[in-house]
Amino acid sequence: MLRSQHHNLFGDRSSFDHLGDALRSPTVSRVIDFASFRIAIAEYLSGDLPYKLSPDDVFLTSGCTQAIEIVVSVLSQPGANILLPRPGFSLYEEQCASSGLDGRHFNLVPDREWEIDLDMVEALADDNTVAMVVINPCNPCGNVLSYQHLSKVAETAKKLGIMVIADEVYNHLTFGKNPFVPMGAFGQTVPVLTLGSLSKRWLVPGWRLGWIAATDPNGILKDTKIIQCIERYLSMSTAPATFVQGAVPEILKNTKDDFFKKTIETLRKSADLCYTKLQEIDCIECPNKPEGSMFVMVKLDISYLDDIQDDFEFCCKLVKEESVVILPGVAVGMKNWLRITFAIESSTLDDALDRLKSFCKRHQKQTN
Amino acid sequence: MLRSQHHNLFGDRSSFDHLGDALRSPTVSRVIDFASFRIAIAEYLSGDLPYKLSPDDVFLTSGCTQAIEIVVSVLSQPGANILLPRPGFSLYEEQCASSGLDGRHFNLVPDREWEIDLDMVEALADDNTVAMVVINPCNPCGNVLSYQHLSKVAETAKKLGIMVIADEVYNHLTFGKNPFVPMGAFGQTVPVLTLGSLSKRWLVPGWRLGWIAATDPNGILKDTKIIQCIERYLSMSTAPATFVQGAVPEILKNTKDDFFKKTIETLRKSADLCYTKLQEIDCIECPNKPEGSMFVMVKLDISYLDDIQDDFEFCCKLVKEESVVILPGVAVGMKNWLRITFAIESSTLDDALDRLKSFCKRHQKQTN
Ligand SMILES: Cc1ncc(COP(=O)(O)O)c(C=O)c1O
Ligand SMILES: Cc1ncc(COP(=O)(O)O)c(C=O)c1O
Repeated sequence: MLRSQHHNLFGDRSSFDHLGDALRSPTVSRVIDFASFRIAIAEYLSGDLPYKLSPDDVFLTSGCTQAIEIVVSVLSQPGANILLPRPGFSLYEEQCASSGLDGRHFNLVPDREWEIDLDMVEALADDNTVAMVVINPCNPCGNVLSYQHLSKVAETAKKLGIMVIADEVYNHLTFGKNPFVPMGAFGQTVPVLTLGSLSKRWLVPGWRLGWIAATDPNGILKDTKIIQCIERYLSMSTAPATFVQGAVPEILKNTKDDFFKKTIETLRKSADLCYTKLQEIDCIECPNKPEGSMFVMVKLDISYLDDIQDDFEFCCKLVKEESVVILPGVAVGMKNWLRITFAIESSTLDDALDRLKSFCKRHQKQTN
Repeated sequence: MLRSQHHNLFGDRSSFDHLGDALRSPTVSRVIDFASFRIAIAEYLSGDLPYKLSPDDVFLTSGCTQAIEIVVSVLSQPGANILLPRPGFSLYEEQCASSGLDGRHFNLVPDREWEIDLDMVEALADDNTVAMVVINPCNPCGNVLSYQHLSKVAETAKKLGIMVIADEVYNHLTFGKNPFVPMGAFGQTVPVLTLGSLSKRWLVPGWRLGWIAATDPNGILKDTKIIQCIERYLSMSTAPATFVQGAVPEILKNTKDDFFKKTIETLRKSADLCYTKLQEIDCIECPNKPEGSMFVMVKLDISYLDDIQDDFEFCCKLVKEESVVILPGVAVGMKNWLRITFAIESSTLDDALDRLKSFCKRHQKQTN
């Protein structure tokens, strides 16, 4: 029996320490904070868009991880398929497998700065294709897609009658020639669900606060009931901690530019260092200098190596012999490539790259 | 490229405020805190059990809400069914509907202090039944099951070859004749998955910290790969905020008894007040004085009322005319019953019950 006024649930507050939220249900708490964080995220994202988002377009999630879980689950209809990037972020594959959604892979092309192979997208799509996933800035490739290319992506998706899932968890983490352009800038052409979180730009992955935004000015996602399905999913699932929710407006409005600049400078320096030092290693080829996110994909030429069969064995031996952790490409869909994370402090990175180099030398084939 | 030592990710920490967790993945953070909170929860739950849980038996979730989502999802196999209590907690029904798991309802019997109708459980179960759900202390009935009855539940489940999902989110919130007995006390008889959280006993629903514990000393859930499925689900889903995870050992070990005592005293007084005042209302019958949780189920005798058709209309008119919110029984599976939350401060409760009484009087049939 709860009065419709939600204050003062216990009369004598002094006798109940720490009971600020006492006995309020998470649902009630969510309702209370609802408007303010939705407004804040809508404003934040609208800053990069040619139209204004409404707070109703924004849904709070427990990190971008839960945003992916929700989107994949909502799109899972018997027989449906979704187009995923290769290399990609394996959570999409895992969630598809768990929901029974058929994931089909289009290539990202290293020789074209990791642009999407749109011919392949067209070839893969059929009447049962519901969406394509675009991760930009890209994990694992480290590239940032240009306005022109994103515009072509939008036209292709429109032609195919599918929507775009834009994973922009690394938004604004760019330090090369292409600025960050949100996929939602093309929301007039094609409906876009934009996924994001505080994890990367604010460097707080442990806070578990993310969002799904319907960057869809024509309201197609509403008409097709996708939005309703997202709302239904949220109504029965967990939410971020209420005190993190409460901090969102403050965080989005008042983080100083200086904070972002320092992060970008650190990432730029690390990316440069990484790219330069990788040139010195014979068996590794780095097709593109990373310009965004925190990663770079490099090609492993196994023919240079003596006692190593593939990327997986390479990474296992590397961690054992040198205590350096690299993700084998096979984990993101590309055998005999490697994904390197450069988002670490430069002296550690420098040391790690030296170890990588001496590891490669040690295992090099003897040419006599 | 992350060194296997997870410290000092940025060299010059002073130039990066708030970067304690900088660029560590949530996975890494989870690994770091893993051992300590698992040990703490295992110890906490073992205090009520005739055997000791190992940290490996405990899985952290984002509130009991996510624990329910995971358990239902893991048990959803084509053709499988699960037995749920009526009245119950509607999240189970919603999750079953979303996962395609067939939910069948057994009754809780008001005339037997809301004990489980075990004959009905036996009649409902078949070869495809995977589990039964027991919520104790009970939302919505407010009863606490006795050791004897829980022992019969265990024997029945054993006979049927099904496991028990024990939702003990209200554990230790008891203030009547029956002490809280965990279902896991019968883990030798039947495998039990125990669900819990900090939300109720610590009154922090907004913190989103819960758990699943395999209270299963014979390791049947491990042998049948249920545990593996839970681990797999967790590996691809969101986790509680890391700083809440980090606080768990401290919270579980150092919360003073006084804190719990005050909560129990408040709940006991509110339950007494509620029960006493409900006796004065003609159209409402309260079969049992609540002895646990924060709720009580009462029967609405619609024949006393003039212009009200059912529980739903009753609750709609009540909130409109008196600003008092009660959940219609139909929402928890029992038409023409009501679920009353008494976990509010006593003067507010007193006032609300007065309003309820005058509302009922106003709508009473004129007997002339
Ligand atoms: C491409 C991509 N999407 C989503 C996520 C998940 O982000 P969050 O930490 O907000 O759950 C990550 C995290 O590494 C990522 O790389
Ligand atoms: C029976 C029952 N189970 C689970 C939950 C969810 O608990 P949590 O707040 O930890 O997600 C509730 C909350 O009301 C409940 O009543």
